[in-house]
Amino acid sequence: MTNKEKGTEQESALHVMGGVTSSHDGTKRTARRKFVKKEQPANIHHLVEKIISGSRLELAQGITLIESVRKQDQSYAQELLQKALPHTGASVRIGISGVPGAGKSTFIETFGLMLCELGYKVAVLAIDPSSTVTGGSILGDKTRMQNLANHPNAFIRPSPTSGTLGGVHRKTRETMLLCEAAGYDVILIETVGVGQSETAVRNMVDFFALLALTGAGDDLQGMKKGIMEITDLIIVHKADGENRKLAKRTVREYKQILHYLQPATPGWQSTALPVSSLQKTGHKEVWELIQAFKEKMLESNFWKTRRQEQTKSWFHDMIHDRLIESFFNEEGKKRVVSELEKSILNSDVTVTAAVEQLFAKKV
Amino acid sequence: MTNKEKGTEQESALHVMGGVTSSHDGTKRTARRKFVKKEQPANIHHLVEKIISGSRLELAQGITLIESVRKQDQSYAQELLQKALPHTGASVRIGISGVPGAGKSTFIETFGLMLCELGYKVAVLAIDPSSTVTGGSILGDKTRMQNLANHPNAFIRPSPTSGTLGGVHRKTRETMLLCEAAGYDVILIETVGVGQSETAVRNMVDFFALLALTGAGDDLQGMKKGIMEITDLIIVHKADGENRKLAKRTVREYKQILHYLQPATPGWQSTALPVSSLQKTGHKEVWELIQAFKEKMLESNFWKTRRQEQTKSWFHDMIHDRLIESFFNEEGKKRVVSELEKSILNSDVTVTAAVEQLFAKKV
Repeated sequence: MTNKEKGTEQESALHVMGGVTSSHDGTKRTARRKFVKKEQPANIHHLVEKIISGSRLELAQGITLIESVRKQDQSYAQELLQKALPHTGASVRIGISGVPGAGKSTFIETFGLMLCELGYKVAVLAIDPSSTVTGGSILGDKTRMQNLANHPNAFIRPSPTSGTLGGVHRKTRETMLLCEAAGYDVILIETVGVGQSETAVRNMVDFFALLALTGAGDDLQGMKKGIMEITDLIIVHKADGENRKLAKRTVREYKQILHYLQPATPGWQSTALPVSSLQKTGHKEVWELIQAFKEKMLESNFWKTRRQEQTKSWFHDMIHDRLIESFFNEEGKKRVVSELEKSILNSDVTVTAAVEQLFAKKV
Repeated sequence: MTNKEKGTEQESALHVMGGVTSSHDGTKRTARRKFVKKEQPANIHHLVEKIISGSRLELAQGITLIESVRKQDQSYAQELLQKALPHTGASVRIGISGVPGAGKSTFIETFGLMLCELGYKVAVLAIDPSSTVTGGSILGDKTRMQNLANHPNAFIRPSPTSGTLGGVHRKTRETMLLCEAAGYDVILIETVGVGQSETAVRNMVDFFALLALTGAGDDLQGMKKGIMEITDLIIVHKADGENRKLAKRTVREYKQILHYLQPATPGWQSTALPVSSLQKTGHKEVWELIQAFKEKMLESNFWKTRRQEQTKSWFHDMIHDRLIESFFNEEGKKRVVSELEKSILNSDVTVTAAVEQLFAKKV
């Protein structure tokens, strides 16, 4: 079942909004559509005002609209975002990744609570496209972050796990923008660190941190290639008890490796810090480091340059995705490509000739 | 001037072949075209036979055909490759990269000559898309590799530096295949190591080596991100004289870093070796290592799997390139995209809405 098919079967995400109710028989649906068409702009206006004023309920409804696969909802979502855009951009966007078992939820909860206590509004967005495989780690995270979730300054939202990778990222980016419009000062975007999302997250945040354990490198073996080179800070977690000494050594080792690698951010030497969420040590240092990073990047103007580059490349990625999607969605195209692949591997045809054949057929 | 325009102005690459002469007035050209049309299949047949029999002259002519931007030549080139395909695949394909000053030409000459003396046929292909900027380093390489160039077992060919990155890579891949059909046992593909070609070269070779100097990592600062993680072997070059001791230390340091990084080839621990092309030491060890690598990869069948994956992803890359190229080649499309970019950065429009607008116009 494609997303589009799903979309027509689903009720609009707007059913969660007051004044719009869902229905299943044809007559009512027509009536409802008319209502939506006429009344929606006013509703969107109301929605964005409530979001900007800081209402969590309407923020959640707005995100539901962004996540909806229903065509009409998507156009409302864009209208909402359009109105929200002038109020975006003021947060610090932080990506946090790490191997399973590194204690991401515990770190985020402790770090987030510290920031909330300091008076910051903190939004946590979790991307976990692999959760369909690993099964419900998001739910686990939510339970584990209960203290943070209950704090009035915090907002936690798992990202939808269905749909294409590009679709998940679009939703996360747009959710981030909406959270900024709602006045959140710090956006934490979490990935599991074993999938394909790390580069995508790096491309939507200002600062990227990687959670690791003691024994430098050994626990990164299962991670994506090049992850250290997109990292501004390696947090050596669980630096407590008997682990403390080893963690300090690991920090030194990581610093040495990072010295040899290209920096993730021009003008910033990526580094490592020991942190214990059990003993609540190191989180202050992490935040101070992020603030120093921001200051330095604002000075060099790379803060703004990177964000503009990120937005531009998001635009171009979406163009590419659309082109490739519409190409492969053409009737029989996948079959032809897979047959050509076989011919190529059989040495029946050269790659260049196969491409020519493919595009000759198209025109 | 686009490549296509250039193509119509250029004479066919076939003019280097006996029996086909170039001409400039209309009448003769028509006559020639007729001749080409009728006689070409026989010529191509002759050409491929001579190439397979090992004639360097015809190999060079075949490569000129591959490199030609003339439409008719391209179709001959594909015919040639088609006939050559069953004779390809038997070589060891080695990528060699390194910072300027690491001594790539000296290493390749010494290494290549050693292989030639051992009875192997060695082809050297140089990719240098940046040479338009740095100015003629290819010519320098050719002069510096004079001894290797004169050896009957060696064949040196710089790749064309004009055209798109994708185009350059297509030509290098196809040239590599033709060299294999001509019986070359070892193909060395050289890149300058500061451009965007390293990943592309990694995707067309079995083994990727990186030339570095003493002082681990420091001289890699200017290189592409993640280069160490696509590397099977780091050759610490100029390990002679006073440098010898330092080189050995550098080798140890690199080994340590490589241990922490993901291996470039599953089942192979990337490593480092000291080499001196001045004292001609270490080249034997490099070759032994490559042979051990090949044996291990043949055992695990990853040798074949990787090549098949490379061919498939080449095919898909070409499809993507074609889609994006034809999209941006549409009248006025670049202007529209650049205007939308400005609107996006001005927060006048959301990225998603801009993409919708772009594709709504298209349909």
